[in-house]
Amino acid sequence: MARWSRTAATLVLGAGLGAVATRLRSDRDRRDEEQIGGLLSSVPVVPVLALPAVQATELTVNPGSSGAVMKYGFPSLANVKTRESYVTSYDPRTRSASWVIERLSPASLSGTSDRKYCEFKEDDSVHVFHRSTNADYRGSGFDRGHLAAAANHKWSQKAMEDTFYLSNVVPQNPHLNQNTWNNLEKLCRSLTKGYLNVYVCTGPLYLPRQEADGKLYVRYQVIGRNHVAVPTHFFKVLILEQVDGRGVELRSYVLPNEPIDEKVPLERFLVPIETIERASGLLFVPNIMKKTSSLQAVTHR
Amino acid sequence: MARWSRTAATLVLGAGLGAVATRLRSDRDRRDEEQIGGLLSSVPVVPVLALPAVQATELTVNPGSSGAVMKYGFPSLANVKTRESYVTSYDPRTRSASWVIERLSPASLSGTSDRKYCEFKEDDSVHVFHRSTNADYRGSGFDRGHLAAAANHKWSQKAMEDTFYLSNVVPQNPHLNQNTWNNLEKLCRSLTKGYLNVYVCTGPLYLPRQEADGKLYVRYQVIGRNHVAVPTHFFKVLILEQVDGRGVELRSYVLPNEPIDEKVPLERFLVPIETIERASGLLFVPNIMKKTSSLQAVTHR
Repeated sequence: MARWSRTAATLVLGAGLGAVATRLRSDRDRRDEEQIGGLLSSVPVVPVLALPAVQATELTVNPGSSGAVMKYGFPSLANVKTRESYVTSYDPRTRSASWVIERLSPASLSGTSDRKYCEFKEDDSVHVFHRSTNADYRGSGFDRGHLAAAANHKWSQKAMEDTFYLSNVVPQNPHLNQNTWNNLEKLCRSLTKGYLNVYVCTGPLYLPRQEADGKLYVRYQVIGRNHVAVPTHFFKVLILEQVDGRGVELRSYVLPNEPIDEKVPLERFLVPIETIERASGLLFVPNIMKKTSSLQAVTHR
Repeated sequence: MARWSRTAATLVLGAGLGAVATRLRSDRDRRDEEQIGGLLSSVPVVPVLALPAVQATELTVNPGSSGAVMKYGFPSLANVKTRESYVTSYDPRTRSASWVIERLSPASLSGTSDRKYCEFKEDDSVHVFHRSTNADYRGSGFDRGHLAAAANHKWSQKAMEDTFYLSNVVPQNPHLNQNTWNNLEKLCRSLTKGYLNVYVCTGPLYLPRQEADGKLYVRYQVIGRNHVAVPTHFFKVLILEQVDGRGVELRSYVLPNEPIDEKVPLERFLVPIETIERASGLLFVPNIMKKTSSLQAVTHR
């Protein structure tokens, strides 16, 4: 209980990540934004509401195919790979993806694919110097956490199998993986009932924190012979297409890579998209703004 | 004295980076290399010798131009930018370059350019969220350390000015910057007397070290409002074209981002190229091997 309280407090009340966000949203930064065209000033910030009750209309033929994923662009263009179920950008230094994008819809979630036929496998499209292996995880105390979730791709056995590439996997706290993170993945799937399409972008974060000397440090463990980086946090950015085609809703979450009590509501982990854009080195809003004139960023701030 | 001894010992005797290199060069890794075609098994490792006495012949017209830099390929393809004096790959997460490549020759080193007309400037080709500023460095205790050195580009005032983009700059320990690092830059320039061309690739490293709990952690400071990453180490990879056109020599250095006594010979910081390739997420040898059948890797190991 004490543990999750601290975690939630860190994020919501500004002691940890909140401090980062606060530093980042200083007056000077706001001026900088205005200078570059006020990207974010055009994004109205609205409180979290109940899910829209409108039923989804599925318009596309190939349910979760990766081609459709690029509608709202990619948050970076480095080492982009296309898989059956997702598009990803690989970071050879951390031995994992920088981000993974999937498109979920009722059609992509239904099918007979079964994860019992799937096995975690090395990604041999990555040089052996920069690739993680199953051995790296063994005895590490971390789960092999999916970025693009297996259960999002029941529409095709191949699509589900592709989520088992270790390039789609990061070292994740087992309790988080099996509880709150799993709940967030379920939330993403449930949103397909209320939106036309649900684009989900997931990735690792390596966030700084203040140490005893008053300075900020990024510190993360590396595991195994290949020094696979253990993220300090994870992000999920949801791009939600409204059923009436009128606009797009954006929800962005940051969760720490540690146990979180399931009683903490997921909305507590909502953050401004700018926090993720600054910390990750990625950009979401500029691409989305090319595709819609109506973007609502859902956040508690 | 105690400080540099420790530093040198860390690198040479295998307590710190040495330990990383040792872990990396395990038997299993060697088997992996063989499986992927034995890239490095084709690179003979030779001890450091005196510089060749042959005089350089300069064949190209435009002395240091960035186009010529790509002869031996790039160590990665993410966010590549071409400048007058160098080609670089930008890492928006650390707010600095992943690598910078220059080509040095006697012609590129001579000219009337003067750094007194140069000023450090923000790189406005980088989004404001991911860009470092002069303010980030102020009061940080770190120098604005050039990756591509200003003095390498006397051939053109514009080329010299381009080295002052803050995307070509990293937070560097002032003592290191002004002493041993400066000596390494001078060594690079002096090598133009003995080789046809000297290709220099420079970049930051974020190396793990073992902490009290026996686990490995990457830990680095971030400075300023934009959280500019302070590298734990730097690498320089020199690709030296022999005057007789017969082959290429490779020298790779890793220096810690801390004071080093100038009495420590630079050869003490030579490491196997594989150490840099694994730690940085970059690859040098595969590209070089496409251009030459004779590659000698100079190392003390």
